[in-house]
Amino acid sequence: MAKYVELANQIKEQIQNNVWQVGTKLPSLRKQTELSGLSLMTAMNAYQLLESQGWVVSHSRSGYVVAPPVQDVAALFPKQHLHETESVDINDFVFDILQASRKNTVTNFGFAYPEANLYPQNQVNKSLVRAARKITTSHDLDNFPPGNETLRHIIAKRYAAQGVNIHPDEIVITAGALEALNLSLQSVTKAGDWVIVESPCFYGALQSLERLNLRALSVNTHPTEGIDLKDLETALQTHQVKACWLMTNFQNPLGFSLSDDKKRRLVKLLQQYNVYLIEDDVYNELYYGATKPLPAKAFDDSGIVLHCASFSKSLVAGFRIGWVAAGSRALQIQKIQLMSTLSTSAPVQLTLADYLSTRHYERHLRLLRRKLEQRKFQIWQLLRSHLPKDVQVNYSSGGYFIWVALPAHVNATELYKMAISDDISIAPGEMFATTQQFQHCFRMNASLQATDSVVRAIERLGMLIRQLL
Amino acid sequence: MAKYVELANQIKEQIQNNVWQVGTKLPSLRKQTELSGLSLMTAMNAYQLLESQGWVVSHSRSGYVVAPPVQDVAALFPKQHLHETESVDINDFVFDILQASRKNTVTNFGFAYPEANLYPQNQVNKSLVRAARKITTSHDLDNFPPGNETLRHIIAKRYAAQGVNIHPDEIVITAGALEALNLSLQSVTKAGDWVIVESPCFYGALQSLERLNLRALSVNTHPTEGIDLKDLETALQTHQVKACWLMTNFQNPLGFSLSDDKKRRLVKLLQQYNVYLIEDDVYNELYYGATKPLPAKAFDDSGIVLHCASFSKSLVAGFRIGWVAAGSRALQIQKIQLMSTLSTSAPVQLTLADYLSTRHYERHLRLLRRKLEQRKFQIWQLLRSHLPKDVQVNYSSGGYFIWVALPAHVNATELYKMAISDDISIAPGEMFATTQQFQHCFRMNASLQATDSVVRAIERLGMLIRQLL
Repeated sequence: MAKYVELANQIKEQIQNNVWQVGTKLPSLRKQTELSGLSLMTAMNAYQLLESQGWVVSHSRSGYVVAPPVQDVAALFPKQHLHETESVDINDFVFDILQASRKNTVTNFGFAYPEANLYPQNQVNKSLVRAARKITTSHDLDNFPPGNETLRHIIAKRYAAQGVNIHPDEIVITAGALEALNLSLQSVTKAGDWVIVESPCFYGALQSLERLNLRALSVNTHPTEGIDLKDLETALQTHQVKACWLMTNFQNPLGFSLSDDKKRRLVKLLQQYNVYLIEDDVYNELYYGATKPLPAKAFDDSGIVLHCASFSKSLVAGFRIGWVAAGSRALQIQKIQLMSTLSTSAPVQLTLADYLSTRHYERHLRLLRRKLEQRKFQIWQLLRSHLPKDVQVNYSSGGYFIWVALPAHVNATELYKMAISDDISIAPGEMFATTQQFQHCFRMNASLQATDSVVRAIERLGMLIRQLL
Repeated sequence: MAKYVELANQIKEQIQNNVWQVGTKLPSLRKQTELSGLSLMTAMNAYQLLESQGWVVSHSRSGYVVAPPVQDVAALFPKQHLHETESVDINDFVFDILQASRKNTVTNFGFAYPEANLYPQNQVNKSLVRAARKITTSHDLDNFPPGNETLRHIIAKRYAAQGVNIHPDEIVITAGALEALNLSLQSVTKAGDWVIVESPCFYGALQSLERLNLRALSVNTHPTEGIDLKDLETALQTHQVKACWLMTNFQNPLGFSLSDDKKRRLVKLLQQYNVYLIEDDVYNELYYGATKPLPAKAFDDSGIVLHCASFSKSLVAGFRIGWVAAGSRALQIQKIQLMSTLSTSAPVQLTLADYLSTRHYERHLRLLRRKLEQRKFQIWQLLRSHLPKDVQVNYSSGGYFIWVALPAHVNATELYKMAISDDISIAPGEMFATTQQFQHCFRMNASLQATDSVVRAIERLGMLIRQLL
């Protein structure tokens, strides 16, 4: 056994024996080398192994912190491997919850966007002013699908920086990632087709299936490992599947990212069954580590992956600019776009092309990532302090969502109803699946600054949960 | 017989006897009173009667001008009253034509927008700069569906100015009228439903039916009178129709407007059969007369009319802002929007709210109408001079389209292909119907300034047509 595996096993045992309690820091790497006499590299490998297994989470300020026992969280999920839904019916439920949360007075843990103060609005406004000064009427036509050429080149360069080879001509600019995802799905399916979704998954995927009259085949997904490729293969073997809609990085709502190896195997498997992958990758800029995670698209040599992303979660929420790197489907997607919304707004495309040509974006992203990591860690600690001990609070190293599992008999939609009447919003688990298996779960937006009122709201949530227990 | 009818009949006879040739001015009203000894009111009534019957067109500078014999144009349309299309398949054809016309070097008579130089880009840019300076991140949420509140109030006031009572809350801001129309149609249909469209109609309607897997029931529409209500009733009696998609003012491609009386009877008929009217009214600001034509929505007391319009044809093409006054379907439409594009871009909504709060819009519209009328009249005259005499050139008092009918055996798609290789684009009749009955027709964009190159392009079109004859 390699030395780092030995060390990792030792620490694992110590965690299980409560030597290191959940939420406390492990010794720093330097300290660990002193304690164990092992090299820095060995200590680091051990910590990273522990992290990959979900025993610890890394945190740039606090080092490695003992994570809640994710194995238990996983155990809480009923092992319903596949679930068929002939006709998805979730939109009204989702709409009502989103509407109820729109009041200004609501502490919005149910919100899908980063807190507004995280966006660099002033800088973006400056680009908007610059763009406004130079817009001519010919821009209208120039920015029709596939969209602004400069913007598509900038996006292609950002892929290239990751070593992913995307030609600007396969990029189509859309009204946010949501339109990209919808157009992508529509371009490869027709009504009645089977589409694989994760369970739980982003509710937008379910709404999209509902809107397009597609049949959902839900495949159980693991809180830290993601979709089970064996279950996926069973689904592909037993159903005439046309597309698979997955989030590969910082999955909404669970927060996990697929490993590169898993992404590679996923693409290979889908290629084998000739099934398109609609890859929803809207949180890819919100990593806490040193490097941006790769998309599954990076492992696609056959054009079956339609990679969708946007600037809505990382730069500006209200512009509604996203894109799809659509491979062979790029032209088809433009055709559908031309007959549904025609085009994305020209001034906002020009504004983004201007902003992204500055150095502001990278600087902003570095700051955003650090803030999100801090805030999420803080909210995670607050939840662990104020929620009852038998509530499982998941953690992941990216994005800004925390998935919370109540004891199995407690209904999170009930909790939502009680909370919203106290002006606190959460996103109940029912929003994220076609089944009832996540009724005891909810998603928390952890991008909120831990102000007094946020702390009070979390305390209040804890009280409400205790009432329900 | 009333005196004005007598006078009208007299003039009609003179036109038939070539006393007044097509394209020439009738005597001015004042002159007419001198000639006939009748009152100014009688002369005016006679001229208006002639106009309503399509014998003359009114032109603010030139007075009343003898129109081409529209009766003949009508006769050219095969009298196929109803046509069923189980599965619309037009999008690829439309896409290819629009793509081919996008080159800068093309003289684009096939374009659907007013020529770029007609838009007040500088003024709009100023509003964009003002909006950019005051956008805060909270605007993102504020401008989510149903859309910016100020903008919806301004739109409601514009309806009120016409005496049409629309509550701001039934207005949903969309990505251009196209999204409004698509969302409206989707909100009242499901795949496989019958939808009535005009023949010929705006190709966007056909694309929308194709996208939503709806069945098209095409009802023949008259070049000056619009849809035949008897045919419409037959369609309603014989099919389980869910919606009817019509243009009520300055119809694309024919240019006619329904009379108020016909609008009233249309709404009544649809109410009787419980069928929604998707009213496409994107050209309503482009009237040449004294008053803005009413929408059919004005005659709807039961909420069956979903009135769709935009600023794309009257103010700015690339913003992609439209709306629907959706009556009882407003909430349902927001729900579909939230799951397809989520929302319209915030900065452009704020910009329009700013611009429309100034007095610029009315001033701009007055100028735009005058210019469009001048340009259309000029293009009409050029077409009449340069196209062979057996080509029928339609005219209408609003908008900027001219519908041209070649002799029945000449294929306008062939003409399109020849013309586009000469960098001249037209919109062939096949784009506007599910049948082949308009293969000999094409639509001309008459908003183009009659520059030398435009004149040459029309001459060239005439030559190409002669080659085909």
